Amino acid sequence: MTVTLLHYTPLIVCADAIRTCWQSFDKSDQGGEKDRELIDRVGNKFKHASTLEHLHYTFYIEGISRALLQELSRHRMASLSVKSTRYTLKELKDEAPFDPMDFGRATSYLVMTGVEIVDHMSVQALENLRQVLASGVSNDRAKYCLPESYKTELTWSINARSLQNFLSLRSDKSALWEIHDLAHTIYSAVPQEHQYLFAASIKGEGHE
Amino acid sequence: MTVTLLHYTPLIVCADAIRTCWQSFDKSDQGGEKDRELIDRVGNKFKHASTLEHLHYTFYIEGISRALLQELSRHRMASLSVKSTRYTLKELKDEAPFDPMDFGRATSYLVMTGVEIVDHMSVQALENLRQVLASGVSNDRAKYCLPESYKTELTWSINARSLQNFLSLRSDKSALWEIHDLAHTIYSAVPQEHQYLFAASIKGEGHE
Amino acid sequence: MTVTLLHYTPLIVCADAIRTCWQSFDKSDQGGEKDRELIDRVGNKFKHASTLEHLHYTFYIEGISRALLQELSRHRMASLSVKSTRYTLKELKDEAPFDPMDFGRATSYLVMTGVEIVDHMSVQALENLRQVLASGVSNDRAKYCLPESYKTELTWSINARSLQNFLSLRSDKSALWEIHDLAHTIYSAVPQEHQYLFAASIKGEGHE
Amino acid sequence: MTVTLLHYTPLIVCADAIRTCWQSFDKSDQGGEKDRELIDRVGNKFKHASTLEHLHYTFYIEGISRALLQELSRHRMASLSVKSTRYTLKELKDEAPFDPMDFGRATSYLVMTGVEIVDHMSVQALENLRQVLASGVSNDRAKYCLPESYKTELTWSINARSLQNFLSLRSDKSALWEIHDLAHTIYSAVPQEHQYLFAASIKGEGHE
Repeated sequence: MTVTLLHYTPLIVCADAIRTCWQSFDKSDQGGEKDRELIDRVGNKFKHASTLEHLHYTFYIEGISRALLQELSRHRMASLSVKSTRYTLKELKDEAPFDPMDFGRATSYLVMTGVEIVDHMSVQALENLRQVLASGVSNDRAKYCLPESYKTELTWSINARSLQNFLSLRSDKSALWEIHDLAHTIYSAVPQEHQYLFAASIKGEGHE
Repeated sequence: MTVTLLHYTPLIVCADAIRTCWQSFDKSDQGGEKDRELIDRVGNKFKHASTLEHLHYTFYIEGISRALLQELSRHRMASLSVKSTRYTLKELKDEAPFDPMDFGRATSYLVMTGVEIVDHMSVQALENLRQVLASGVSNDRAKYCLPESYKTELTWSINARSLQNFLSLRSDKSALWEIHDLAHTIYSAVPQEHQYLFAASIKGEGHE
Repeated sequence: MTVTLLHYTPLIVCADAIRTCWQSFDKSDQGGEKDRELIDRVGNKFKHASTLEHLHYTFYIEGISRALLQELSRHRMASLSVKSTRYTLKELKDEAPFDPMDFGRATSYLVMTGVEIVDHMSVQALENLRQVLASGVSNDRAKYCLPESYKTELTWSINARSLQNFLSLRSDKSALWEIHDLAHTIYSAVPQEHQYLFAASIKGEGHE
Repeated sequence: MTVTLLHYTPLIVCADAIRTCWQSFDKSDQGGEKDRELIDRVGNKFKHASTLEHLHYTFYIEGISRALLQELSRHRMASLSVKSTRYTLKELKDEAPFDPMDFGRATSYLVMTGVEIVDHMSVQALENLRQVLASGVSNDRAKYCLPESYKTELTWSINARSLQNFLSLRSDKSALWEIHDLAHTIYSAVPQEHQYLFAASIKGEGHE
């Protein structure tokens, strides 16, 4: 999977928003250490979490499965524009047949689990779907035999408050392995000077 | 698919909420024709849509596909508690093998599209998934070869304002056939005395 | 202030929503001790907070100030229908003059702070407002000299997740005294069998 | 009143988000006329309003009354960080007395309505509040005699979808005069190349 940051709000906008409450703009150091500490203190420690909502991030997420998308879309304080199977499944139509024993070409369409029997069945389903589409069935019906390993991509916009919630729930060991990986990948894609706001939300790396 | 209404707010609560603004409680007819007309006038015609949020519905939705769930969960002003594949896929483990030529038993697990080749591939995927689970693979990996036709169910809570938005977008001809059917089924499950609030959101029955 | 519960969702609806995920309906004791423990475990301890959103409460809140309303309306995951000054200020027009030294009659219009000089100024402002209205000025202009102690009332709908957030922030000692009192009054108005879900959100009684 | 745009998302981010669905990135003209038309067509005409949520604006709003703030905060799909009376009322303490007949100095603290008797009463209330604070009463009690004409300021973040809703409701003739003016002032502060997205939300200029 790949996560690319497309746009974000500079920290100074959040620091100034907080300074609105106290009208303490003269104490700002223009996004420097004092402002950074202020955001952490008010937004995190004082739990005035609404101030973190001024920080808005837009990511492009590629190479995740539709199994993961089912979980990602439960985070409702975010905006998702997702590659539509209804509009794009035709991409499979002109592919040459997939050999269920050869995972190579299929990896551009499928997220592999590393468990051979599962991945074998996924490639089989991909080949079946290709045949269905080649036979002229519309996307709206064909998509019902799509395996959830099928890759998708999306533009995802989320504010810092909701992103903290996402990271703390999904970086946890009990989360589904793929969304656990996504949580860590998104954390790495956050601007480096913003990462300190999310460090407490990120849990240990290991999961079974 | 089946939609069951589990709980809802009586109309009188919404009418009284509106009467709060004008302090006109003495004009109420206790949820009668005057109150019903008031809700429609203020909530719909005057576009004071927040007043409709006091009406909160909880439905149990069964027999829809995970393909449909992908679309349903985009409606973020709603609360979803969904049958988890991570927790429940073991249900397939002890099933006898499915014959891809015999759709009968498979219909308790799969939403059929009516297109034979698609449904055939879905049953094939179901049988493959059964074998994967029988071989001892964990749900978290096995679920990647699940076909999106796999049936799920959920408890869905939504307020009248968000339900209007859902119905107007999804009862439209351009919507995916299954969610189009769901929109109409949900409309039928709304309490009869509440349906007038949603009539304008429901579009024509036909779709290609 | 007075808080009246107008409608709420029974606990069993939330317990069944949680059981949807595991399809464990057969373990329910119909809203009994097992179901109550399940809601606390999954919604609170496991932090699957979305399950608490199925519990939806509608309150009628009377006798709070518009100063408090400024803070209450910052809790955006809730629905407010508020007595409108634009529509109802005429209520003052036919009142006899208020004597700024006599707080008695004014208490039906004003929240008193217990600090004599403040309350005196509030009654003075009330009398001034009465004169403005009696002189024929429209509500939309007259309301600009309204003191924030002016009483208002509202219908307030909120789900259990958002109510927990409200109670934990506003029952805190650092909250404004009046909203601190409101937090405790609302907690008391929650159905008794639901209160255990909010006990951890309620902080100590004392505040300076 | 003054509205300053502090930060916003470029149109190209929204256009690319929409192109995610069709994977039609190759048709982009990098935020040019084709992209602009695409956003209008999909976000407005097709009512895929969630795509407009990727556009996020942060404004600084000064010189509005707390009467207006009561209405502004009802728009809940937005983030508000507001000058706090609890933290800042001390600003009045060291002021010289205000003469209720002289509106000049008071205009830095009060929104004037243009109706003499109202503004006179507001200045009277301002002077009364000054005396209360000078006598040593805490902000938390003193603020109860604050007139709603008292000026406030805030940092306000909102996405394009919610901003359309705000503008269409509040630029209407039936809106309170001051929020009607705010709607038009905010519209003017939107980046010029974004204004076409909101033109249909803005109603006629006149109001009584």
